[in-house]
Amino acid sequence: MSDMREETNPPASRRQRRKMHTGRLEAFSDSVFAFAITLLVLDLAVPAITQHDLLGALGRQRASFLAYVVSFATVGAIWLGHSLITEYLERTDSTLTRLNLLLLLLVSFLPFPTRLLAQYIGVDSAEKVAATIYGLTLLCAAGLLSVLWRYALHEHLVVPDADDTELSILTQRLTPGLAGYVVLLALGLVVPVVAVIGYFVLALFYILPLPLQRRPRQRPGTRR
Amino acid sequence: MSDMREETNPPASRRQRRKMHTGRLEAFSDSVFAFAITLLVLDLAVPAITQHDLLGALGRQRASFLAYVVSFATVGAIWLGHSLITEYLERTDSTLTRLNLLLLLLVSFLPFPTRLLAQYIGVDSAEKVAATIYGLTLLCAAGLLSVLWRYALHEHLVVPDADDTELSILTQRLTPGLAGYVVLLALGLVVPVVAVIGYFVLALFYILPLPLQRRPRQRPGTRR
Amino acid sequence: MSDMREETNPPASRRQRRKMHTGRLEAFSDSVFAFAITLLVLDLAVPAITQHDLLGALGRQRASFLAYVVSFATVGAIWLGHSLITEYLERTDSTLTRLNLLLLLLVSFLPFPTRLLAQYIGVDSAEKVAATIYGLTLLCAAGLLSVLWRYALHEHLVVPDADDTELSILTQRLTPGLAGYVVLLALGLVVPVVAVIGYFVLALFYILPLPLQRRPRQRPGTRR
Amino acid sequence: MSDMREETNPPASRRQRRKMHTGRLEAFSDSVFAFAITLLVLDLAVPAITQHDLLGALGRQRASFLAYVVSFATVGAIWLGHSLITEYLERTDSTLTRLNLLLLLLVSFLPFPTRLLAQYIGVDSAEKVAATIYGLTLLCAAGLLSVLWRYALHEHLVVPDADDTELSILTQRLTPGLAGYVVLLALGLVVPVVAVIGYFVLALFYILPLPLQRRPRQRPGTRR
Repeated sequence: MSDMREETNPPASRRQRRKMHTGRLEAFSDSVFAFAITLLVLDLAVPAITQHDLLGALGRQRASFLAYVVSFATVGAIWLGHSLITEYLERTDSTLTRLNLLLLLLVSFLPFPTRLLAQYIGVDSAEKVAATIYGLTLLCAAGLLSVLWRYALHEHLVVPDADDTELSILTQRLTPGLAGYVVLLALGLVVPVVAVIGYFVLALFYILPLPLQRRPRQRPGTRR
Repeated sequence: MSDMREETNPPASRRQRRKMHTGRLEAFSDSVFAFAITLLVLDLAVPAITQHDLLGALGRQRASFLAYVVSFATVGAIWLGHSLITEYLERTDSTLTRLNLLLLLLVSFLPFPTRLLAQYIGVDSAEKVAATIYGLTLLCAAGLLSVLWRYALHEHLVVPDADDTELSILTQRLTPGLAGYVVLLALGLVVPVVAVIGYFVLALFYILPLPLQRRPRQRPGTRR
Repeated sequence: MSDMREETNPPASRRQRRKMHTGRLEAFSDSVFAFAITLLVLDLAVPAITQHDLLGALGRQRASFLAYVVSFATVGAIWLGHSLITEYLERTDSTLTRLNLLLLLLVSFLPFPTRLLAQYIGVDSAEKVAATIYGLTLLCAAGLLSVLWRYALHEHLVVPDADDTELSILTQRLTPGLAGYVVLLALGLVVPVVAVIGYFVLALFYILPLPLQRRPRQRPGTRR
Repeated sequence: MSDMREETNPPASRRQRRKMHTGRLEAFSDSVFAFAITLLVLDLAVPAITQHDLLGALGRQRASFLAYVVSFATVGAIWLGHSLITEYLERTDSTLTRLNLLLLLLVSFLPFPTRLLAQYIGVDSAEKVAATIYGLTLLCAAGLLSVLWRYALHEHLVVPDADDTELSILTQRLTPGLAGYVVLLALGLVVPVVAVIGYFVLALFYILPLPLQRRPRQRPGTRR
């Protein structure tokens, strides 16, 4: 209760508020991710009822299904990356909260380029425009995720006892992904369909288990 | 605080991060389940306004209502199973998180086969295609739920003090459900409507209270 | 660590799991309530662009706005009642979880009768059908909320230190609401619009602050 | 355990319930905010497939994109303000819960004026009606946010150890925003497009980091 004690050791209720703040950032983000990923299904149109060959009609909509799966995998991958990042976050600050809001703008915008892609794949020049808008959205989202992480590292917002090796593995993982999006964007100007499949592979690459949590812990007493 | 103690007993903040991770997996899953279950209502079309016999017009849409109720019960059943599983989970690992993402893909995809079913029930050959796609989605979702549970058991991710009887009851419950979906899928190729009603019964079977929590605790003085 | 201690005082991790279960029930319910309440806005149609008198066109859609506000108030009221109930819940059991799922079915179904109402208010005989379906949904939802509460009381699922006066105030509040819905349902067969306005008043009545939390606490040491 | 101690220091389980209540208010609000912000994307229409100049077609929809970004920024800003407020909230009471419900009504209603704006910007007289309805919704939402905060302060619902300077910074920030909305509403009657851009600037102003959390703490030894 002395002044000094309060200085070095902030009161519990204040620390609690800080944590609550991170809690709401995560809760809000989770909801936005969940809605964006679920809204995608609304763009899968049921073929007109005059159609009797239902399987054939569905087959002709394969562009919609492709766009659906790629976008689902991408939102899933970004959510995974986001939850890894917040797992290491001890607290948030106002800049991080704003960066996060910008990331959510891109994630919740994604159903629109997905619709564009589903509708214009195979329509000569338009498919390149659609694939480019789609790829740019993915690139920006992946870029922001990386910025978010580097900002958190730079501002020492991560938990103090985090293992440096784990932190750098996460940092390394986020970088080639970015380069991949740039390459695929260029490829999309020539063969859009291949680029879209590339975006799917990239999302799977992000989704692949990071060695963070399964790493055998051989060395005794290394932590902290 | 000795080296040895730290090995067997990881620091509190690290364990906290682990819990947070499970927290986000649950929060994200809950949102996706909730959204998928609520989106179903969008497919209940209001009859055209030229129609004066509203009750009759609604009656002619009974396929929509049937599909709505069956899908609602199924998502509810999967959510129940999922929340039972996570109740026993102490922590998650990267594989479980990915399996969960795959389950969410199927759950959030379900509104599409539901729409298909609502529109094509009663349309000769097309209704069999619709019922099969619907059943396959349910089978895969139920299968993944079962895989999720067995994986968690196998990797010792469940809470250490869980009652073995409770665990095996949950395991047993998930298996006949799977067999049921396979039988109904075959039945759906002959009489699709009966299969759909079967899917409803199966969902109710999943929803039926498991004896897990009401089990009489014979030993005296168990509850405070 | 002796057997006896464990008997009377269940291990912490087990109690934690119980709480987590209630947590997911609340999280899932909150999400369904939130989606259902937000989905309502999708039914507010923007008047066709050929229309130049925008205010007049919006005025002619007043039935949509009325239905929107009544449904919003009702879902809000049910959410409030639900959160009051769960505030007193110490734990859930399998029956309560199923009753809750049934309540969510009704809440997430509400956008459909709302659309019906918005479209058929003022369309002679059809408006009575629409108002009756709407009222029945509200009656069932309010009824289930009441059943949920009585079941929780009966099965001693409420926190042991809850004030009996508070519990009975909540019980009393839920009953006249039910009677109100029955009266309005009958009224809706004669003058549907008046019934709909009545549903709004009823929702506001539910939303009105209960004296639970502001009650001046005069008597010293009465708690527990 | 004496009577007096219990008076000044309510039992833990009761305080826990209070916190849970705030928890549900936040969880429900987060979901509504997240859903409203994600629903906005549904109003971005994909140009008809007969259109070959996709970029040009998208350019002609710039009003939709403008409305999308302004509404996204506004919901984001209100969410930020809301999460700042709840960060200082220790508990809620019934009036605050109702005020919050009213705020959520406005937030979840916002997609409708957004659609109106997207469709009627540039349509002579109608655009003024659309911009006014849009601005009124924003004004009411910002006003309610301010009322919520002042009510919480007045009723001493904020955490007791909150820094007075931080509290008054938050109070001051909320006031000019309100005045800004009134000015822009008037401007919207003359040049609607400029008013809409003004709404965007106002939202960014709300989003700008408050000096609350980055304030340099001059006293030495403050942070561990």
